[in-house]
Amino acid sequence: MRLALFSTPSTPAQPAVVEGDTLRPIEGLASLDALLALAPAERDAAVKRLGAPVPLASATLLAPLHPRKNVFCVGRNYLAHAEEGARARGEELKLPKVPTLFSKAPTAITGPKQTLHLDGAVSQAYDWEAELAVVIGTRCKNVREEDALGVIFGYTCLNDVSARDLQNATNQWFKGKTLDDTCPLGPSIVTADAIGDPQNLEVTLRLNGEVKQHASTSAMIFPIARVIAYLSAGLTLEPGDIIATGTPEGVGFARTPPEFLKDGDVMEVEISKIGILRSPVAIAAPVGAAR
Amino acid sequence: MRLALFSTPSTPAQPAVVEGDTLRPIEGLASLDALLALAPAERDAAVKRLGAPVPLASATLLAPLHPRKNVFCVGRNYLAHAEEGARARGEELKLPKVPTLFSKAPTAITGPKQTLHLDGAVSQAYDWEAELAVVIGTRCKNVREEDALGVIFGYTCLNDVSARDLQNATNQWFKGKTLDDTCPLGPSIVTADAIGDPQNLEVTLRLNGEVKQHASTSAMIFPIARVIAYLSAGLTLEPGDIIATGTPEGVGFARTPPEFLKDGDVMEVEISKIGILRSPVAIAAPVGAAR
Repeated sequence: MRLALFSTPSTPAQPAVVEGDTLRPIEGLASLDALLALAPAERDAAVKRLGAPVPLASATLLAPLHPRKNVFCVGRNYLAHAEEGARARGEELKLPKVPTLFSKAPTAITGPKQTLHLDGAVSQAYDWEAELAVVIGTRCKNVREEDALGVIFGYTCLNDVSARDLQNATNQWFKGKTLDDTCPLGPSIVTADAIGDPQNLEVTLRLNGEVKQHASTSAMIFPIARVIAYLSAGLTLEPGDIIATGTPEGVGFARTPPEFLKDGDVMEVEISKIGILRSPVAIAAPVGAAR
Repeated sequence: MRLALFSTPSTPAQPAVVEGDTLRPIEGLASLDALLALAPAERDAAVKRLGAPVPLASATLLAPLHPRKNVFCVGRNYLAHAEEGARARGEELKLPKVPTLFSKAPTAITGPKQTLHLDGAVSQAYDWEAELAVVIGTRCKNVREEDALGVIFGYTCLNDVSARDLQNATNQWFKGKTLDDTCPLGPSIVTADAIGDPQNLEVTLRLNGEVKQHASTSAMIFPIARVIAYLSAGLTLEPGDIIATGTPEGVGFARTPPEFLKDGDVMEVEISKIGILRSPVAIAAPVGAAR
């Protein structure tokens, strides 16, 4: 099943089941977060109470979720990306034995096709990071690795847009990861049963049509089940929580010469079985820069 | 003005104005987060619609806020603490020119006098960090340092309980900062007008009655106005957001020999003009440990 949040010129945000080229609004619920807050049996009932079809072409898809906490993120989870990062920073590659975790505030979340309004006075080094995002479906804690895929509701695309100068200004990456409009999410959530093995998906990032990142989720250092087991140790995960599972090689800062986002660029994150998350970029010139 | 969230054996959570030894429930609101979501004029009206007094002694104070995002935290914001940390890690002290930021998930938040249930199988190195917490009152972005104190609603106490082994397992501190029950908050919020200068408060941590940390907020490397200016660059802050402003020297891991929390310990964070945030500690023995 595929789920989306949408609006039309005449209707506010509504959750929906996506059936081919049509949206079937889920009646009586205002969001997919509200759907995920229901018990599993109630969720199953809710996705059968569907309103009249709305053509996908007439709707605007919105960010599918707005969690009540930061997005959990995994850093350095593809070996070739960890290597390119260490090389670009002139550091020796030292991989930890456990996942590297950080977060992005929910104010960073924006929807598919939404223009990212980035501030050239705040950062001069905006970069892309295509990632498979996991949506948690079950409240859980201390999940065993062998049970971990069972707490997943579904998957979507996420672009962990990163301000590299801010990310590297201190030893903690958070400030460079959490600016407004730096967490495009969507276009829709595909439920776990329709994905099957999440470690066999192709993740691609295109910048203005050119492929910059392309890898299989089979290359993750810490597979998703291991990430959930580690993250949930001593920490309660809740339905609707989002985990960004790391980005593969091909980011901008590690290229020779480095490449950063420019005003007018268009990024696309594509993940097999999920779809394309398209993000036009608008960067206001830094204060004092030539215009 | 002093504000709290409380319950009694016969009433659910209610926000209140604290007047001496009594609580005056704020009518028509379910939380202090709801109060902060109102426009300033509506807030002023709301805190005048008060119900019958409830004796403080008969009430249970709860964590005053439950923000819809992670708590923003500043690391290494007192020089003597940055020095003790570098010394304990055998590193050279290199202070960045900007605040070091990370976060704690809202699932970590717990209330005053609530026992912290910590898991000895997840970490063997739980530590204390007394901190002044800022509560944002105004939606804002790109706040200038000279305007920054104007966006603050009030202040409270926070204990940034840290699992040092997890904090140092990778280069990102987040996993060691965000376990359940590691963010005691309260006991109440004191509004900014009643605090006056936030850079002239005494922050103390006592462990089982013994003073472990004691410093003035005047010793912050980055004063609160500078933290807000930096944090809000390119990032929207919202009413109810919490910023933990860093901890002074005297944490456990930097002591000789290192000291960590034990089952049965009681921590108290005390900040002048605000009050005492008391946290008993219960640590379940690690799996396989002698009991």
